[in-house]
Amino acid sequence: MSDLHIQTVSSYELGLKLDMNPAQIRKDLAYFGEFGRKGIGYDVSYLIEKIKQILKLDRFLKIGLVGAGHLGIAISNYNQYIKENFSIRAIFDTDPQKVGQKIGSAEVFHLDDLQREIEDKGIQMGIITVPAQEAQKVADRLIDAGIRAILNFAPVNLKVPPNVYLRNADLTTELQSLAYYL
Amino acid sequence: MSDLHIQTVSSYELGLKLDMNPAQIRKDLAYFGEFGRKGIGYDVSYLIEKIKQILKLDRFLKIGLVGAGHLGIAISNYNQYIKENFSIRAIFDTDPQKVGQKIGSAEVFHLDDLQREIEDKGIQMGIITVPAQEAQKVADRLIDAGIRAILNFAPVNLKVPPNVYLRNADLTTELQSLAYYL
Repeated sequence: MSDLHIQTVSSYELGLKLDMNPAQIRKDLAYFGEFGRKGIGYDVSYLIEKIKQILKLDRFLKIGLVGAGHLGIAISNYNQYIKENFSIRAIFDTDPQKVGQKIGSAEVFHLDDLQREIEDKGIQMGIITVPAQEAQKVADRLIDAGIRAILNFAPVNLKVPPNVYLRNADLTTELQSLAYYL
Repeated sequence: MSDLHIQTVSSYELGLKLDMNPAQIRKDLAYFGEFGRKGIGYDVSYLIEKIKQILKLDRFLKIGLVGAGHLGIAISNYNQYIKENFSIRAIFDTDPQKVGQKIGSAEVFHLDDLQREIEDKGIQMGIITVPAQEAQKVADRLIDAGIRAILNFAPVNLKVPPNVYLRNADLTTELQSLAYYL
């Protein structure tokens, strides 16, 4: 709404947009502080800034992606949509045909240069898009290089130490959730 | 565990595998009926069958995927992992170079043949992997062809009627959740 040059918004308007109860919106936001003013509503840019702080999105995170196959390329190209808070800074693969190429705005490096590039570029998060049988090895290398947050697209349960936060983007789970409602 | 020829499993063993409290597992399963026997545990194959019924995974669902770009190809190749309950039966694209090709085990058809193929093949679910600006049009065509469950990978909010179940597989959300813990 900030793009639409709207300066204030009421919980009623937010409720319509989000298909939520306005009272619930007021209650949820009040939990984090006094953001709104009675009879006026919320200042849009202030509210956006506060919500970013609450969700810890007031930072910029650098990503390294391992596996320049179809999925890796799709995500790297998608990079343009997510650049506000995230940026894929390096892509890793073992295929000599791919090393040295650019996908989206990031260069493809050899997997053997993972540690060096992660340190040089200050990369904080890893995305794994390699085949299932390679994924654990790749996760281990990312963790050895200091990565503490991994988004895994390989259909396999990875073992990571307790100080590493792992999230699995599992297509099967998505399909199963969807199928439940059919 | 059925693959490992284990016939019975206790809630304690399940708890170790799932990193959950055994009492919670017993309570959750008891909610759906009496599956286990005290001091013996659960019969593995019976438990699997029951859980599939609970999650409505005791069915086979046919999928149509629209958009044979990198993401569409990645998902179609991934198909082999998900074939137990789901199968991509047709892929749709407008690129004449792609129409007639096979990706994984499914053929690529022209988008104009969507309705015909969905009816012929009894396709029940749709996956959208087209660019954001094409996604709403594709969703409308899927819905017109009778599809009532859509998994959308395009980074855009689709409008669907209330009788259509839509799920968004949004990379940004995944990354944001992950970033929260960093």
